[in-house]
Amino acid sequence: MSATPVRPQLDALRWRDVDVLEYKREGGAPFRDVTRQVLFDLPSLACQLRYFEVAPGGHTTLERHQHAHAVVIERGRGRVLVGNAIHDVAPHDLVHVPAMTWHQFVAADEVPLGFLCMVNAERDRPQLPTAEELERLRSDEAIAAFVRT
Amino acid sequence: MSATPVRPQLDALRWRDVDVLEYKREGGAPFRDVTRQVLFDLPSLACQLRYFEVAPGGHTTLERHQHAHAVVIERGRGRVLVGNAIHDVAPHDLVHVPAMTWHQFVAADEVPLGFLCMVNAERDRPQLPTAEELERLRSDEAIAAFVRT
Repeated sequence: MSATPVRPQLDALRWRDVDVLEYKREGGAPFRDVTRQVLFDLPSLACQLRYFEVAPGGHTTLERHQHAHAVVIERGRGRVLVGNAIHDVAPHDLVHVPAMTWHQFVAADEVPLGFLCMVNAERDRPQLPTAEELERLRSDEAIAAFVRT
Repeated sequence: MSATPVRPQLDALRWRDVDVLEYKREGGAPFRDVTRQVLFDLPSLACQLRYFEVAPGGHTTLERHQHAHAVVIERGRGRVLVGNAIHDVAPHDLVHVPAMTWHQFVAADEVPLGFLCMVNAERDRPQLPTAEELERLRSDEAIAAFVRT
């Protein structure tokens, strides 16, 4: 993390001194075409602020965890599963993912979906659905058509 | 704070279930034409995320405090004092205000300056400069021309 107080945006949603990272470091969790940029990760702040960008047609991992997400959509368009509901999202919409709630972000086919995500710096690891949990989720027809695994 | 997982943007940088508040509740701190919206303030998250908007020609309070700010510019244009340096800022620029660092956000004369600000939920109260501290800040010509008190 640079000590520079101001880091200008260079290209769209790309910043000086911010690396464009793979969404997940470890293998095993299914996702497609997602980048991660850690904008703020400071000892003085109890949360981190990250920027994720899902390419057109891509998706984040379907997962849940004890920690919550506070999300501000910044770019493009897509849909989000939170619990049992699927929502269309566009720039500046706010998304709250509560504890232990299944969630997945899916970009539209034609445009990316970029969003800021605030999380506690200390947090648990995400859980993937078991075959049984996935079956239960898929008992809802709309969710069955939505989820990418 | 609404339990709804998705709160869409209604007008530009105005949201369903988010009140537009005065910048500061208590009197005494000098500022001009600033609104505050608390986007996320949840027991499950150790930080809050707020959206501030400074109207054209307006400014936040010149202050410092122990807690840090992590800022993402969202709208308009302006200038920011952080410590001893003044920076031009525009959408998606990142601003870090470290502990006990004098800072002030000033909107351009023609357009507002809107920004997201992440802070620890538990934090100290801002301090205003004493006459002596203000004199010291103003010993720098650029800062003297910049600061609004």
